[in-house]
Amino acid sequence: MTLATRYLSARTLDTAPVPSTPPGPGEVELAPAYVGICGTDLHIFHGDMDARVAVPAVLGHEMAGRVVRVGPGVEDWAPGNAVTVMPLRWDDTCPACRAGHQHICQHLDFIGIDSPGAMQQRWTVPASTLIRLPATLPLDRAALVEPTAVAVHDVGRAAIREGERVVVVGGGPVGVLIALVAQAAGADVRVVELNAHRRLLAEELRLTVWDPAAEDLAELVRQWTGDAGADVAFEVSGAAGGVDTAVDVLGVRGRLCLVAIHPQPRQINLHRFFWRELTLIGARLYDRSDFEKAVTLVADGTIPADRLISKVVPLTQAPAAFEALESGGNVMKILVDCTDDTPGAAV
Amino acid sequence: MTLATRYLSARTLDTAPVPSTPPGPGEVELAPAYVGICGTDLHIFHGDMDARVAVPAVLGHEMAGRVVRVGPGVEDWAPGNAVTVMPLRWDDTCPACRAGHQHICQHLDFIGIDSPGAMQQRWTVPASTLIRLPATLPLDRAALVEPTAVAVHDVGRAAIREGERVVVVGGGPVGVLIALVAQAAGADVRVVELNAHRRLLAEELRLTVWDPAAEDLAELVRQWTGDAGADVAFEVSGAAGGVDTAVDVLGVRGRLCLVAIHPQPRQINLHRFFWRELTLIGARLYDRSDFEKAVTLVADGTIPADRLISKVVPLTQAPAAFEALESGGNVMKILVDCTDDTPGAAV
Repeated sequence: MTLATRYLSARTLDTAPVPSTPPGPGEVELAPAYVGICGTDLHIFHGDMDARVAVPAVLGHEMAGRVVRVGPGVEDWAPGNAVTVMPLRWDDTCPACRAGHQHICQHLDFIGIDSPGAMQQRWTVPASTLIRLPATLPLDRAALVEPTAVAVHDVGRAAIREGERVVVVGGGPVGVLIALVAQAAGADVRVVELNAHRRLLAEELRLTVWDPAAEDLAELVRQWTGDAGADVAFEVSGAAGGVDTAVDVLGVRGRLCLVAIHPQPRQINLHRFFWRELTLIGARLYDRSDFEKAVTLVADGTIPADRLISKVVPLTQAPAAFEALESGGNVMKILVDCTDDTPGAAV
Repeated sequence: MTLATRYLSARTLDTAPVPSTPPGPGEVELAPAYVGICGTDLHIFHGDMDARVAVPAVLGHEMAGRVVRVGPGVEDWAPGNAVTVMPLRWDDTCPACRAGHQHICQHLDFIGIDSPGAMQQRWTVPASTLIRLPATLPLDRAALVEPTAVAVHDVGRAAIREGERVVVVGGGPVGVLIALVAQAAGADVRVVELNAHRRLLAEELRLTVWDPAAEDLAELVRQWTGDAGADVAFEVSGAAGGVDTAVDVLGVRGRLCLVAIHPQPRQINLHRFFWRELTLIGARLYDRSDFEKAVTLVADGTIPADRLISKVVPLTQAPAAFEALESGGNVMKILVDCTDDTPGAAV
């Protein structure tokens, strides 16, 4: 048995014993150390993804941990290896896979949504999903590799070039990571964020942050860019107003990289896309090269992962942490410590 | 004086004498032969662009004609030269121009909208706007070079590659031209068009045309692409439903080139952009290389321009032709013959 944090129904989680799965051929059993709580996990918690998630569902896909034992035929991994997981399984036969886009396979299994995730003491995954971590990288920081890989993928989709002016709309964890990765790529970055606490956190990371409620964004962009408009905008807010902002800040031939998930259709100013020859670029997940780059960025401190971790809670307190997260945006990243099964105090 | 067709107010045109302008330094006086009536001209006629157009406004920007006389300092042109005009004047100083995108200059003067157009017996334009026509190309066909340049630009923005599957949503003149240019680039093309007459015209050009009201487009695309979806869609309909169709037909990493003008914001399925990593590409106008390629395509018969010309009317009958065009889509391209000032019969 292994203790696991499970989604049962809208707004109901528990941490309870579940059977553990011995590693089959090509599989590896891991001991997750730290697992981040992601916006997608919150969507599941809210019941927004009930059509997709089979309950009870063990959550978690942002993790770092160690190999415990390997299944038959696994040769590259040994107990004790520090790893993170790229939580994707594809079918390798659909048109997307055949075109080389396995990460958006038409029958993708996203581990942690479509199959059991990492918020448990033991987790069995295909060896093919493992990404090696440097021995010197603390595992709590390494739990930030997965969202960093998202940011690396997004910055890659937007094809950021040295010296470009970039606006990131939405200063949550993914927005901040995109800002940092874009900055590392040589971009001049501004973050737009409504929440005062998140603005403060982003400023502590030396990012330049604008409050769209208090400032005239159009005028700020005009002064900053000499009337040219921004080269790239990332829409990371998920809000209708965020989409408008991302369109409005762009100059001629600007690129809007769409990162946030918008379940509902949004009103888009297509005339502006025509007039300025803008491009809208959808971005989803990551591939192995994004993950490997993310490991490097977290390990070399380009991403100050320790400063993005707001709190670490024991596995038994994960359900309470979801409830606390739901109530406000005053945190960046909460990690669940899967090695800690003490009941602990309320979060 | 020169006879000119002018927009006066919503749904009111006349053909009346106006003063002609002798060519100044760097300018050329032309005798327009044929001028096409474009969708944008119809928008002006409907009063939709009153905020932009200074009345009385001489319309027309799809033309072919001959040089009559040249102004001081013009050395490359001589009376009798057959020409078309790329009807753009830019300021060369704005950020768009400095970035090399003069065709979307932030202070663009589109000749025929922002300044007097070609529907007149004499027309003075900067020599820099002239594009040379082969002496063997009939001038009525050459009047199709400008919309063909639009299609060349759109196909270029979409970066069509040999063998790609392309859906053109909207089978009016520009849609048909895009389909023909994409086909010439090696694409496998389908045109989607609601209007039966336009479907017939497109089929006569050996295009494969689908009727979205009678056929299950999703199923047709599935069969055609082996469940992969199309590589590229062009939205040329200007309708909300056309945007949805263009998004829906695309497969993973598909590109949607936005050609039609949508004055109002449109509801867009952004989730699909995320899920399939789609790209939306705004396209506007053309540059000189697009125009030169268009001359070649019209001259070598790749674009069967003669078959796209539904009717030729004398200059004096241009106002009546606008009214006839307004009432239905049963024509492709109507040309105004600026050398013909006979009153003529009703159109």
